[in-house]
Amino acid sequence: MTAHTLDVVGIGNAIVDVLAHADDAFLKTEGLPKGAMTLIDAERAEALYKLMGSAIEASGGSVGNSMAGIASLGGQGAYIGKVRDDQLGDVFRHDLTAIGVKFETPAATTGPGTARCLILVTPDAQRTMNTFLGACVDLGPEDIDEKLVASAQVTYLEGYLFDPPRAQEAFRKASTIAHNAGRKVALSLSDPFVVNRHRDDFRELVKGHIDILFANEAEICSLYETDNFAEAAAAVRGHCEIAALTLSEKGSVVVTASNIETVPPAPITQLIDTTGAGDLYAAGFLYGLTHGRDLVNCGKLGSLCAAEVISHFGARPEKSLAELAREAKLA
Amino acid sequence: MTAHTLDVVGIGNAIVDVLAHADDAFLKTEGLPKGAMTLIDAERAEALYKLMGSAIEASGGSVGNSMAGIASLGGQGAYIGKVRDDQLGDVFRHDLTAIGVKFETPAATTGPGTARCLILVTPDAQRTMNTFLGACVDLGPEDIDEKLVASAQVTYLEGYLFDPPRAQEAFRKASTIAHNAGRKVALSLSDPFVVNRHRDDFRELVKGHIDILFANEAEICSLYETDNFAEAAAAVRGHCEIAALTLSEKGSVVVTASNIETVPPAPITQLIDTTGAGDLYAAGFLYGLTHGRDLVNCGKLGSLCAAEVISHFGARPEKSLAELAREAKLA
Repeated sequence: MTAHTLDVVGIGNAIVDVLAHADDAFLKTEGLPKGAMTLIDAERAEALYKLMGSAIEASGGSVGNSMAGIASLGGQGAYIGKVRDDQLGDVFRHDLTAIGVKFETPAATTGPGTARCLILVTPDAQRTMNTFLGACVDLGPEDIDEKLVASAQVTYLEGYLFDPPRAQEAFRKASTIAHNAGRKVALSLSDPFVVNRHRDDFRELVKGHIDILFANEAEICSLYETDNFAEAAAAVRGHCEIAALTLSEKGSVVVTASNIETVPPAPITQLIDTTGAGDLYAAGFLYGLTHGRDLVNCGKLGSLCAAEVISHFGARPEKSLAELAREAKLA
Repeated sequence: MTAHTLDVVGIGNAIVDVLAHADDAFLKTEGLPKGAMTLIDAERAEALYKLMGSAIEASGGSVGNSMAGIASLGGQGAYIGKVRDDQLGDVFRHDLTAIGVKFETPAATTGPGTARCLILVTPDAQRTMNTFLGACVDLGPEDIDEKLVASAQVTYLEGYLFDPPRAQEAFRKASTIAHNAGRKVALSLSDPFVVNRHRDDFRELVKGHIDILFANEAEICSLYETDNFAEAAAAVRGHCEIAALTLSEKGSVVVTASNIETVPPAPITQLIDTTGAGDLYAAGFLYGLTHGRDLVNCGKLGSLCAAEVISHFGARPEKSLAELAREAKLA
C-alpha cells in the first residue's frame, strides 16, 4: 500500500438544490412524503417547480455536501459525479472546486441537464426532497479514475447511487480498486425509501464490501426490516467494521465489533433547515477518521458539522468548519 | 384616465445573483470598489467567479427585488425585463411569477446568457456587486407592453437601466405611455457610479419625467455634484413631486414641494447582508403610495421591508412582508 495523497474520494449524484419554503398542506396536496427523497421525472420536475414558491439555488448532492464539509475542515478530497455542460453544471463544479475539492469528472455533452433536487422546507425545518436525476444517469464505470480512488484513504459512496442505472457498476468498480489498494470503503444509506427500493443489493454490498456505514434510525431499520433499532444495530455489527448510526437530536452511536460508543449531540444555535444534516455528520466523522481521531471524537466532529448546516438554509457549510472545530476543541 | 388594474409595473435588468462571502482583502486584491456596482464583461465574470468561494444563486435585479417585495406585501405588480432562454433565465422567471408578479417579456433566443451579478458579502454585511449584463442588453422599446404600462398606477424604473444601450429608449417610451395615461413614474438612482456615468441624462430625466425619486445619500449627492446632503435634497425638491431619500441606519427623509418628513428606521433583528435594502425600501414605499398611505407611513413600510431583507442572505424577502406589516401595525 503506497502512501495516500487524499483523505476521501466521494462518489455521488451531482445535484443542484432548489430550496423553497412550503407548508404541510402543500406537501399533502402534492402527495410528497415528508422528510423523504422522491425521484421525479423531467415533466414532474417542471410541474412541481411551477407550484413552488420563489427559491434559491445551491449546490447539493449528498456526497457533494460531505466533500464540501471535509474540505471546510481542512481535509483533502476529490469528487466523482456527473453534471451536464450547462449553467447549473457550472454552478455545481464551481462550488466544489472553490472550497478545495478536486472534481474532474467530465460533464456530459448530450442528454438531460444537470440534476436538480426540488426541496420543500416546512416550518418545522424538515426538508422534503424531489430529485430529477438528469445527467446523473450517465455516470458509469468509465468515470472512475483508478489512480484517484487508489490514492484516497477512504472511498465514500452514497446510497442514492443505487437509483441511476449504471452507478452501481461504477461504485462496485471503485470499491474493488479501493480495497485492492488497501483502502477503506464507506457508504451512506441515504434514505429509507432508497433502501426499500434496493434492499437485497444494499444488504449484499454492506455485508461484503463496506467498511464504514452511515445510517439514521429509519434507514438502518429499513435495511434489516425491523422496527427495533437495537436489533438493527446488532445486525450491522457483524457486517461492517464501523457503523455510525445517527439519532437526530439525540446524537449518534458508533458500533464496532468490540464496542458501542454513545456520542452526544452538538449544541444547536438555531434550527432552520435540516437539509444536509446527515451529509455533514459523515463529513465530520470521515475527517476525524482520516486524521487519527478516536471514534467518539469522530462522532463529535460529525455532530458539530451537522449542527452548523442545520442552522441555515442550504446543505453546504457557511462557516469555516475548521474554525468551529478549533473553537469546540475538536481540531 | 381609466381605473388601474395594477399597482406597479417595474422595468429593470433581469439578473440572477451569485452570492458568496469574501473578506476585505479579496476586494482589495481584485480592485473591487466596496459597496458599489461594477459592470464586468463575460470574460471578467468567468475569471472573477473562479476566484470566488462557493456561492448560492438567487434571483435579483434591483426592480425585480422591489416587485417581489410589492407582491409579498399583497400588491399587484408586473415586470418588464430581458432574460435568455436558459436555466438561469428560467430561475429568474420562476421566482418572480411564483411570488405573484406578472412577467411576460419574451426571453432572448440568441445572444449572451441571462445576466449574473457576482456579489461579495464582507463580514460587515456590506455587498459589493459585479454585474455581467448578458441578455439585458437586448431590452428595447419593443418590449414595452403599452396596455400593461397604462394599466399600472406607477411605472417604476431602475437607474441601472442607463447602462444597457437600448433600455433608455425603452423606459422613455414607458414613461410617456404612463404619463399619457395619467399615471406616475418612479425612478431609483441605483448606484452613485451609474449616476456618475450618465449624470446629464439622469438630470434631464429627473427634472422632466420623474414624479417619485428614490436615492440614498451618495446617489443624490452624486446627481447634484455636491458633498452636502441638505443641498442635494433642496435641489431635488423642485424637480420631483416626491423624493424618498434613504440614510441607511438613520432611516429616511421624504421631500415634497411643501414638506420634509423624517422617517425613523425599523428595528433590525440581525444584519447579515445589505443586498436589496434600497430595493425593498422602494417596494414598501410604493406599496404604501399605491394603497393610499401618507408619506410617513410609506417610508415606514419601506424601512420595515428593508429591515427584513438585510436580516438574511439574498435580496428577496424570505418572510411574508404582508404579515410583518400587520404585526408592525402598518398594514
